[in-house]
Amino acid sequence: MIIIKVGGDKKNRLDYVACDIKKLWDEKNGRLIVVHGASQYRNHLAAQLKVEIKKIISSSGVESYYSDDTFMDVFLMAYAGLVNKKLVAQLIKNGVPRAIGLSGVDGSLVLAERKKHLFQKIGRKIKLIPGDKSGKIISLNLNLLKTLINHGYLPVITSPAISIEGEILNVDNDAILLFLIKEFQPKTLIYLIGEKGFLKNPNDPDSLIKRIDKKKLDEYSNFAFGTMKKKIIYAKKYFELGLERIYLGDGRVREPIRRLLIKGEGTIIS
Amino acid sequence: MIIIKVGGDKKNRLDYVACDIKKLWDEKNGRLIVVHGASQYRNHLAAQLKVEIKKIISSSGVESYYSDDTFMDVFLMAYAGLVNKKLVAQLIKNGVPRAIGLSGVDGSLVLAERKKHLFQKIGRKIKLIPGDKSGKIISLNLNLLKTLINHGYLPVITSPAISIEGEILNVDNDAILLFLIKEFQPKTLIYLIGEKGFLKNPNDPDSLIKRIDKKKLDEYSNFAFGTMKKKIIYAKKYFELGLERIYLGDGRVREPIRRLLIKGEGTIIS
Repeated sequence: MIIIKVGGDKKNRLDYVACDIKKLWDEKNGRLIVVHGASQYRNHLAAQLKVEIKKIISSSGVESYYSDDTFMDVFLMAYAGLVNKKLVAQLIKNGVPRAIGLSGVDGSLVLAERKKHLFQKIGRKIKLIPGDKSGKIISLNLNLLKTLINHGYLPVITSPAISIEGEILNVDNDAILLFLIKEFQPKTLIYLIGEKGFLKNPNDPDSLIKRIDKKKLDEYSNFAFGTMKKKIIYAKKYFELGLERIYLGDGRVREPIRRLLIKGEGTIIS
Repeated sequence: MIIIKVGGDKKNRLDYVACDIKKLWDEKNGRLIVVHGASQYRNHLAAQLKVEIKKIISSSGVESYYSDDTFMDVFLMAYAGLVNKKLVAQLIKNGVPRAIGLSGVDGSLVLAERKKHLFQKIGRKIKLIPGDKSGKIISLNLNLLKTLINHGYLPVITSPAISIEGEILNVDNDAILLFLIKEFQPKTLIYLIGEKGFLKNPNDPDSLIKRIDKKKLDEYSNFAFGTMKKKIIYAKKYFELGLERIYLGDGRVREPIRRLLIKGEGTIIS
């Protein structure tokens, strides 16, 4: 089993990505799962709809978005509607007619519980935030995933998740990856982003770090920028679950997966 | 097998509908399929995004929408994103954790071919319209539907469809119903709309017609208004395929299905 994550950067080319996933699909006899984001599509749509996106810094210092009902409607439209179906259509176009899009809501695929008390750190004060629909994943519906995979389908998965009470909840796609790695024990994760890989200096595309020792991830966390910091925290957890290597590379170019696996471009963490 | 169609009227209460579907789900031991629209959500979203919706009158006199790429993006967001997942979440909330949302794109569920030449009648002239992504359904992926149903899942289906070339295509949800009726041979179709049923006078809610003889549908077609005309054309085809009765009723009220099946409210066509 190989898991492929396609980041939510609008510069990622879903057509190029789908073309390479099809090749891998053939090589691996259909033992693939795809997970994707849509953050830039969501933010673009929110701006068009004049929905304000509010960042929250939790008491533990982790950045996220305030996910009220309006935000979650935009979320559904961008993730489960627009990007999920466009990626599936590209996969069908490239020869995987059994690519099937699933949000975490569908068939209770990603079961989460609502974070009851979300706190925000404002200066030295910690404030309780009401109305937030963020979730913590409890489990995956393996019955659904295995049924589909055994019948030759390629699951194309995205947030949001669902609670047992039927609430649509915002969860990180990287947290969905965590549960997939735990359950399917893949050795390889392919992670496509809107950069060449892990950059030492985010403003300098030539500052690519080509190899990272998985035991030294903490050192890189110190100078990681933006969402890369969160990705490193997740990466550490993936390795603890038995993952052996992450290929982090450019989703904006032709043959994005071939460049990573064959040509050794991008960042390899192992 | 019973098929339930939930129309795309924003006044339809997905919570009430889901509550009644759950009861029917228990009574029928899971032999249900749900199809839904989202036309008013789509039109509302298009207005918010300042996407113009253009009506087309085909050379045969049937009304539809000009479906270019921009329109199809709005379509995906409203149908496959927003309404599909909200209805699934309501079903999960009401006790059907295996409700699963599927657009016609997913797993090539609804395979269509692009209408190559779309003509519009303007006065006496007939004009060719380029760039339209309207489709004509060819077949359903029965493997996917039967696999899911046999594993206890409740399919919640909506347009758009997909072509073998991977194009996302606009098809009528009522045309998807046609193929479902052909394949699953249900006797009963429950059809929930934003009205009490079939009204003789669209402006008078008290002009409800309680019973319609399926052999006399043509007579009603003459004074049917708006999309109801199209629905009658489809209804005739459903009966030709062996359907025995259509319960057409109000999706805006509590216990919408119970009112139709037990209390006999709405319009029964048989």
